[in-house]
Amino acid sequence: MQTIAPLQKLIEHFRALPGIGTKTAVRLAYHVLDMDADDARALASAIVDAKEKIGFCNTCFNLSDRNPCAICASEKRDHGVICVVEQPQDVAAMERSHGFSGVYHVLHGALSPLDGVGPDDLRIKELIARISSSGEGEGVREVIMATNPNVEGEATAMYIAKLLKPFGVRVTRIAHGLPVGGDLEYADEVTLAKAMENRIDL
Amino acid sequence: MQTIAPLQKLIEHFRALPGIGTKTAVRLAYHVLDMDADDARALASAIVDAKEKIGFCNTCFNLSDRNPCAICASEKRDHGVICVVEQPQDVAAMERSHGFSGVYHVLHGALSPLDGVGPDDLRIKELIARISSSGEGEGVREVIMATNPNVEGEATAMYIAKLLKPFGVRVTRIAHGLPVGGDLEYADEVTLAKAMENRIDL
Repeated sequence: MQTIAPLQKLIEHFRALPGIGTKTAVRLAYHVLDMDADDARALASAIVDAKEKIGFCNTCFNLSDRNPCAICASEKRDHGVICVVEQPQDVAAMERSHGFSGVYHVLHGALSPLDGVGPDDLRIKELIARISSSGEGEGVREVIMATNPNVEGEATAMYIAKLLKPFGVRVTRIAHGLPVGGDLEYADEVTLAKAMENRIDL
Repeated sequence: MQTIAPLQKLIEHFRALPGIGTKTAVRLAYHVLDMDADDARALASAIVDAKEKIGFCNTCFNLSDRNPCAICASEKRDHGVICVVEQPQDVAAMERSHGFSGVYHVLHGALSPLDGVGPDDLRIKELIARISSSGEGEGVREVIMATNPNVEGEATAMYIAKLLKPFGVRVTRIAHGLPVGGDLEYADEVTLAKAMENRIDL
């Protein structure tokens, strides 16, 4: 009886989003009906706009609304250091940390044979091309592997490090250790062992 | 540095939705960028469609994409019994229960002097009009107050019951008691007292 087709359709669409269950989808749909018509249209066009205006930077493959992206185009960044990450979100996280002033390379995933993700599914060729094409003087000095600290991320880091060997470029891996503000008591054993192994002089 | 304007705008829009925090908004925005262009457009048009096609039924003020709504137009429903609820969501909940075959009236809120919600802010006039205009033979026999079982809902139910007195129509209130599947041990005192007070013969 109570079938309002456009409402049902909107609920379905919201439910297809990650982390949105039926109850949240219903709540969001009713909220949309409660919104000003202008706000609803603005939300809809923000979705279409984001999708249409944002693509990949042809150099680093990060998401960008221009090409090359703001980071690749910036003269203030050190183009001699490339930080390799799995996802565009990782670039955003790294930028928030203000701990890196070089440029990025986004792989769009990590090697995962079980999921059928091989080297050709990632932007590895493009990374090699960037390094091999970089000139003598202003060449790439260091590649920092900032893939995730899990099995796939480690494997990807090792694989790319091996590929980069012939180019004589320095390849580093971000440190494993205790998170700042963390608690030694609750740290897992592997992290604790790594933190001990990678201790530094004070 | 990392400012992709359309992405930032989409995140802001998602964050404005109820129950969506910054992290969820970011996750949803990246998900939209990951979607097929067609799916993203479908989501956007579902939002606009729902907003444009759904209005209020002029009889019961429930949300509907037609006028009168499917329930008010149905000959299978008992038009002699009106169930008064606060929100359109309450109609949906009631319909899911399959416990009611009459028609509805949506107040769009409850009396709440502290929040500045008075009788004129609700669809009370329209309810009175429905009852006073109903003919002799096929008149409204009963009005069931199904406002929420809280202070505002109770006050609204009492207020409307008083207004309806002169029309000689039967006014009832949905029962308070223990939820089915609930646990006596964990029921609050007021509910338990109400359940005892409203006990029925077996």
